[in-house]
Amino acid sequence: MGKLLIVGTVAFDAIETPFGKTDKILGGAATYISLSASKFGAESGIVSVVGGDFPKEYLTKLNNKNIDTEGIEIVENGKTFFWSGRYHNDLNVRDTLVTDLNVLADFNPVVPENFKDTDFLMLGNLHPTVQMEVIKQIPVRPKLVVLDTMNFWMDNTLDELMEVIAKIDVITINDEEARQLSGEYSLVKAAQKIHKMGPKFVVIKKGEHGALLFNNGDVFFAPALPLKEVFDPTGAGDTFAGGFIGHLSQTGDISFENMKRAVISGSNLASFCVEKFGTERMENLTHDEIQKRLLQFKLLTQFDIELS
Amino acid sequence: MGKLLIVGTVAFDAIETPFGKTDKILGGAATYISLSASKFGAESGIVSVVGGDFPKEYLTKLNNKNIDTEGIEIVENGKTFFWSGRYHNDLNVRDTLVTDLNVLADFNPVVPENFKDTDFLMLGNLHPTVQMEVIKQIPVRPKLVVLDTMNFWMDNTLDELMEVIAKIDVITINDEEARQLSGEYSLVKAAQKIHKMGPKFVVIKKGEHGALLFNNGDVFFAPALPLKEVFDPTGAGDTFAGGFIGHLSQTGDISFENMKRAVISGSNLASFCVEKFGTERMENLTHDEIQKRLLQFKLLTQFDIELS
Repeated sequence: MGKLLIVGTVAFDAIETPFGKTDKILGGAATYISLSASKFGAESGIVSVVGGDFPKEYLTKLNNKNIDTEGIEIVENGKTFFWSGRYHNDLNVRDTLVTDLNVLADFNPVVPENFKDTDFLMLGNLHPTVQMEVIKQIPVRPKLVVLDTMNFWMDNTLDELMEVIAKIDVITINDEEARQLSGEYSLVKAAQKIHKMGPKFVVIKKGEHGALLFNNGDVFFAPALPLKEVFDPTGAGDTFAGGFIGHLSQTGDISFENMKRAVISGSNLASFCVEKFGTERMENLTHDEIQKRLLQFKLLTQFDIELS
Repeated sequence: MGKLLIVGTVAFDAIETPFGKTDKILGGAATYISLSASKFGAESGIVSVVGGDFPKEYLTKLNNKNIDTEGIEIVENGKTFFWSGRYHNDLNVRDTLVTDLNVLADFNPVVPENFKDTDFLMLGNLHPTVQMEVIKQIPVRPKLVVLDTMNFWMDNTLDELMEVIAKIDVITINDEEARQLSGEYSLVKAAQKIHKMGPKFVVIKKGEHGALLFNNGDVFFAPALPLKEVFDPTGAGDTFAGGFIGHLSQTGDISFENMKRAVISGSNLASFCVEKFGTERMENLTHDEIQKRLLQFKLLTQFDIELS
């Protein structure tokens, strides 16, 4: 069992889908990652920032899941990062309505003493300069550093992002982002180019079409579970990353074979996340439910065919 | 080993992709299905129609693959069905430039005596009235009837199509067509509705995102092989269907477990089809190449995870 440090946003989200809408609810990349990873029992902590308006019970909620929030700075006279979005009938498409950076605009991350020897470092989607600052504050290189990022940083801070990418082991991005970053349409070629930028492992998330794991010549595919209803896709990608790093920190094994299990775990956790608004499903998800659905993933993908 | 009868177009195609273009070359649903199925050694025959302009060496080509062409009517004073299309840089999108039905417009299919006891019947994409006529000419119901169709028939001949759908065992359509036919966005719900129309098995093809096999409560997913280059997608769906029915007629086993292997076989064959223009790759494909790539499908999808 390894220690896991998670860097990312802790935020308010207001979400509108064809099925309903929410007021400001708990959101943010680090929130979803940590809730997902907490199912695997690792000792985990968050580095982030919130404003004085952030309810203490949200922190208690995380603490109750054994997530250390000492690294979440509280700026008493500031406001918490706020994101609002509206999903189309095709839930793959969404419009961002509001992005208020608030306290995130001047965020200087501080890694708590207790996590300076973390085994696993998960750099959630955030300004690459903040991600780099966290890498620098950890004196002994972690066993594995995983980066999640998005097209916004490729558009606006590509140089800084490339410096971070050069220092990590695993990158998780979606298919369009992989194409943008590499300039290659074929995801096989895109992964080859991204390997050359640094990461030994490239995870390409395709939403409802699953995820691909590349490790130089090798490739593995984890499908998304076909669902009757998808209620709210918010946080699914972060929940995937949390299930991925959660499985790895629980087992301490960073071989390609175990990474296969990790992407299946990520897909498994993400399949729950989308069943309810926001973090609701993740908060109440039980070990039994996770195990049962893992069996569904086996039935979905495993076949026995004779090679002659 | 079962007998296999294939109904579908035998045609000329002219194809333009970002990588080049062809003159009129051999094409058509029945051509691709039969070439693909021929890799599995079943005794197969085609029911179709061509014009006097159709080169005899194309028929010889099929015969050399052990495909019986007695059921291909030759209308000496008519012209062969011609389709021309241009693919975009995103090969998932194509424009149809020409569709000349020619001899297909007045086609009355005749099932050869030798195939009236066929074990497997593959109804390739064609007018549903032609598909129904073939069903009627077979006195003893085949072990398995598989239907491939497309949105064009849903738009223009829905009543006739629904009558065919009520009589078959397996339907193969793409994701958008499944949504159109069922009125459901979720593919799980779409499959449920399509089951109620008749087919016990519903195969939903998602192109580069793989294929789903539904059998009432059960679901299985076959990924598409991630490829470095896709050269020409023409015929990939028919080649998938050919690999599917080919595997089933080779084994004679129509259980859900064996259908899983059949969709993997279909994906496997389709992954070759797209590597060259038209039927070129399928004509020269060897048993060894198929087996080697089957191993890649295993490596791509198989994982070992402990359930606790």
